[in-house]
Amino acid sequence: MTSRLARLRARMEETGTDLVALGPTSHMRWLSGADPHGDERPVMLLVSRDHAGFLMPALNADAVRTASDLPFETWEDAEGPDAALSRLLGACGAGPGVRVAVDEAMRADFALLLLDALDRPERSFCGPSLGHLRARKDPGELTALRDAQRVGDAAMRAGFDALRPGITEREVAAVIEGAYAAAGAGTAFVIVAFGANGAFPHHHTGDAALAEGMPVLIDAGCRLGGYPSDTTRCRWFGAAPDPEFVRVAEVVEAAVRAGIDAARPGARAREVDDAARSVIAEAGHGAHFVHRTGHGLGIDVHEPPWITATSNEVLAPGMVFSIEPGIYLPGRFGIRLEEVVVLGEDGAEVLSALPRAVA
Amino acid sequence: MTSRLARLRARMEETGTDLVALGPTSHMRWLSGADPHGDERPVMLLVSRDHAGFLMPALNADAVRTASDLPFETWEDAEGPDAALSRLLGACGAGPGVRVAVDEAMRADFALLLLDALDRPERSFCGPSLGHLRARKDPGELTALRDAQRVGDAAMRAGFDALRPGITEREVAAVIEGAYAAAGAGTAFVIVAFGANGAFPHHHTGDAALAEGMPVLIDAGCRLGGYPSDTTRCRWFGAAPDPEFVRVAEVVEAAVRAGIDAARPGARAREVDDAARSVIAEAGHGAHFVHRTGHGLGIDVHEPPWITATSNEVLAPGMVFSIEPGIYLPGRFGIRLEEVVVLGEDGAEVLSALPRAVA
Repeated sequence: MTSRLARLRARMEETGTDLVALGPTSHMRWLSGADPHGDERPVMLLVSRDHAGFLMPALNADAVRTASDLPFETWEDAEGPDAALSRLLGACGAGPGVRVAVDEAMRADFALLLLDALDRPERSFCGPSLGHLRARKDPGELTALRDAQRVGDAAMRAGFDALRPGITEREVAAVIEGAYAAAGAGTAFVIVAFGANGAFPHHHTGDAALAEGMPVLIDAGCRLGGYPSDTTRCRWFGAAPDPEFVRVAEVVEAAVRAGIDAARPGARAREVDDAARSVIAEAGHGAHFVHRTGHGLGIDVHEPPWITATSNEVLAPGMVFSIEPGIYLPGRFGIRLEEVVVLGEDGAEVLSALPRAVA
Repeated sequence: MTSRLARLRARMEETGTDLVALGPTSHMRWLSGADPHGDERPVMLLVSRDHAGFLMPALNADAVRTASDLPFETWEDAEGPDAALSRLLGACGAGPGVRVAVDEAMRADFALLLLDALDRPERSFCGPSLGHLRARKDPGELTALRDAQRVGDAAMRAGFDALRPGITEREVAAVIEGAYAAAGAGTAFVIVAFGANGAFPHHHTGDAALAEGMPVLIDAGCRLGGYPSDTTRCRWFGAAPDPEFVRVAEVVEAAVRAGIDAARPGARAREVDDAARSVIAEAGHGAHFVHRTGHGLGIDVHEPPWITATSNEVLAPGMVFSIEPGIYLPGRFGIRLEEVVVLGEDGAEVLSALPRAVA
């Protein structure tokens, strides 16, 4: 982990950041390996140019000590965190006007406790410093993501193989989660949507039952060795697919390919979004593609880089992100096809080996 | 849910609060029934004296609409949340100096997005308004907590029944989680600690194997119908318990009883903490009781009221909280005995039917 801390300090220098403040989130895990029990007791990891240490509730101290040898300022329930935080900020040399980058996913009360303890802080979030580093995966992370995707692919196949009349969304989800567990993986998330439910991009898997002549959308990810998979596939269940379903699927397929082709080092994230979105807009479905084209994938299922219409982020080798255009026709069906790609020097490599055919 | 909204508005009046701002947390679930997909896209529920509405990412709107009929200000990935938030704040009549109560568990970036959009806000957290209401359970919530505790008790029995030489902490946890699942419940959390691991109050269940003559600590909770159970029990595994283990357990048992006796309407939370803590301090183990005596239990496993040495909160009928003193001897063992109680007019009723004997 030392090399990550050294890389963060170099990046803090580049971005004019005096202090990075992390909550018990994936940022802390990535940087320090520590994954403290998350509850309402303030836990933070503060990093300055020449100090790094934890604000730590006494009752979590021993468990975290096994993961990190960075120093702790511990506090007990009876006294509260204020004095310990003040000592830690002193050790970090946080003076007036300190330029602090706050973990965006930290609890509001942790962040405000910190900000209130600082003297006229100049505040930002961690995207340009820690987020920048996390977006560029190291070889160990790429191996973990590939391993997770293999498990994800097998489970997705098992889910589609389980389709039969009468089965519910929840039962299909259980098949997928069972396949994850059998491979030693956990569940990151599972969305199974039958029929018109697929038109809700974030449908809550429920008790809808499958019948002949229904579309099926599955968006699912496992978690293995701390890293997730993420894939969406769609399938018409039954003999004669609705011709409109097939036509829309062809548009989405073309959009995925356009996004993959546009994903290369040096391109801006918005160019990938634009490549996929243009295909859909030209087919007259622009209003039915209601979300961004993709998101980074790492310890978090959603993390930088964001593949949006407005992101000027320059794509770089080692970035891993999804390309997942969709067309949603309310009351009818939704089609989303999602690939996760690793950016190499020459372009995007698709991690999943699953075909994208929908019928 | 309308009556909860009306009660919140009455409480806002009492506490001088103009605006309550909730993230996609248990606060939002309690107030509105909505449980939107939680990711980095800002989602909030804002409540003023005469308006209540959601800031909602477009792609979650349809799924949330089924849970709540409060109005939405939706935003799409391509535009971002700023304009929608501004419309929502306008509808809420949030002017200069607005007294806003922020959901303490909301993400930092959501909270700062809101605070930056307000003109010189006077900020606080939701404890006095929403937290105050949530601490007083209604009859439906009490039924749910009792049902969850029954499942929790049975699973705890199954966990202790599974103890045999060679079994690992993780295997015992799997037995408990299996018992939850068999009863239709989910897992809130499971801590299984063998031997000296029990001296870490928040031990991460691992691969330690059981042998004759080891102490076992299990702290576990299920989740059923949205509400959790929470119980800790300890047991000496083997024929002849270490006499010191038995002596320490007697102290903890006396502390639990003192805490339960002190828990009555009108008492301050700190008096319950003091009753339990004094017993332990008088036995010479004050330094080995490193945490507060308890926490409220509701939608969240940890929520108000906090049973700490410094809390002046006045206990009231309908409050549900844990009483869980512990003594931790590093390198040797830890003993914690935890009961969840419901406060009635006459005192505390213990929810669990499990004995607390340790040998």
